[in-house]
Amino acid sequence: MASFDRLEPVSEHGCFGGVQRFFKHASGVIGLPMKFALFLPPQAVAGQKVPLLTYLAGLTCTEETATMKAGAQRLAAELGLALLMPDTSPRGAGVDGEDHHWDFGVGAGFYLDAEHAPWAGHWRMESYLLQELIPAVVAEFGLDGDRLGLTGHSMGGHGALTLALRHPGMFRSVSAFAPICAPTRCPWGRKAFTGYLGQDESAWVAHDASLLMAAQKAAPYPGGILIDQGLADKFLAEQLHPDAFEAACAAVGQPLTLRRQAGYDHGYYFIASFIDDHLRHHAQQLRG
Amino acid sequence: MASFDRLEPVSEHGCFGGVQRFFKHASGVIGLPMKFALFLPPQAVAGQKVPLLTYLAGLTCTEETATMKAGAQRLAAELGLALLMPDTSPRGAGVDGEDHHWDFGVGAGFYLDAEHAPWAGHWRMESYLLQELIPAVVAEFGLDGDRLGLTGHSMGGHGALTLALRHPGMFRSVSAFAPICAPTRCPWGRKAFTGYLGQDESAWVAHDASLLMAAQKAAPYPGGILIDQGLADKFLAEQLHPDAFEAACAAVGQPLTLRRQAGYDHGYYFIASFIDDHLRHHAQQLRG
Repeated sequence: MASFDRLEPVSEHGCFGGVQRFFKHASGVIGLPMKFALFLPPQAVAGQKVPLLTYLAGLTCTEETATMKAGAQRLAAELGLALLMPDTSPRGAGVDGEDHHWDFGVGAGFYLDAEHAPWAGHWRMESYLLQELIPAVVAEFGLDGDRLGLTGHSMGGHGALTLALRHPGMFRSVSAFAPICAPTRCPWGRKAFTGYLGQDESAWVAHDASLLMAAQKAAPYPGGILIDQGLADKFLAEQLHPDAFEAACAAVGQPLTLRRQAGYDHGYYFIASFIDDHLRHHAQQLRG
Repeated sequence: MASFDRLEPVSEHGCFGGVQRFFKHASGVIGLPMKFALFLPPQAVAGQKVPLLTYLAGLTCTEETATMKAGAQRLAAELGLALLMPDTSPRGAGVDGEDHHWDFGVGAGFYLDAEHAPWAGHWRMESYLLQELIPAVVAEFGLDGDRLGLTGHSMGGHGALTLALRHPGMFRSVSAFAPICAPTRCPWGRKAFTGYLGQDESAWVAHDASLLMAAQKAAPYPGGILIDQGLADKFLAEQLHPDAFEAACAAVGQPLTLRRQAGYDHGYYFIASFIDDHLRHHAQQLRG
């Protein structure tokens, strides 16, 4: 059973009858201190073993972004869902060039394990989340490790879809906000994959949600996947390609609710507007 | 009827079926450009004349703080309330020392008109809000100027209570989160009043919510005032003095619901936890 190395509370705030906590810990997988935010609903504070929904944030974000801006705690408190909001990359690695680009390096871990120098040493967000952070959070806070959900936004939506597809059985429910659905064919994804995975594009396939879905033998999430995508999102045409994921789901019979929301952009006012529907989607599939 | 001088849209975001907008305008009262945030609920977007709730933020905040963090738009959309979130002071005045203190000068306008140099030229937040911004917002966006509510947090709670008491008849509903209730006897208030109003403490009385309330002949808000105060608020003992306001309300027969919330601090997780109750309080008193 995973446990934390040097878990330090950073701050703690009463929130909707539960508690919003921030922590720092020494990550063995990343090899650096990492921060995360955890909302414990009143049911968890009272000792109940509640399910855990992990939210993966987008480029440039931290563990604080969605915690502050998404407005998820209100309904999570009502539904009895714990919320884990990790950071988006290692910080302080000192890799040359790590902060030269807003869409690569710091704040842009893409939720995979880098295979190429100089990134492979620390940029291991996939292993960090699945082998270290989530199991340790479940154990440390007495959550229900059999009831895990995964969601995310933009780069974090890519993370949610790909990790859920790469690790069948780990998550029971999946959703995403404006996810990068086909990273092998958009500028953000190609830049990240070239840097982290190398020039050989055959290695990229395993980290592209649409290609991963297209390769399934049967619907991996028969309860359905929920995606919201704003139609006023300035990144939609070039970076996101929800149509590719939609086509892949259709081809393998994966139920998908892809809602194209007129008038909504890529930001947190969009996310806040629809977070309740995502929380209900997860709560329903995570029922004990 | 007030109108804007050089009103410029800064940004606009679809939000809960309505729209969250940010603007900049040339303020005649302040003598500088000022920014504000305005949420228009779906009812207003559809042409209905809706009431307006103004939220005054605390020290160091801007028009963006509560807009991003308070989670007010969800229920405001349901209730049909427009939300105005102004900035907390002039910016860019170039007054010597304006940014030397986090609790005085920039980000710390205290919602009054300064009477002393060098502040009197630009630091005129009371006149700015009541004579310029609110009337211009009502006119420009077709809101119902007869149905105005006022709330705020900390320094903005002081602003909400004092402006509502200093301008009877302007606001129909009042509430506050962790307000500075007795600024004449707390360090934040004494520092601000000394700087903006001068050493003569007799001039301060007219800007102290508890003293203003104590001087009323009859309950100015017979429908009741709502205040939430966290008991884990580190500023409570030294800076806020809700007991003084409570005593003043009791003495004049002003109905007050002062809720002392165990486990809640001074921040936005506290505000978000109780914003819905405040929105309902205002919506009920602002019914057409």
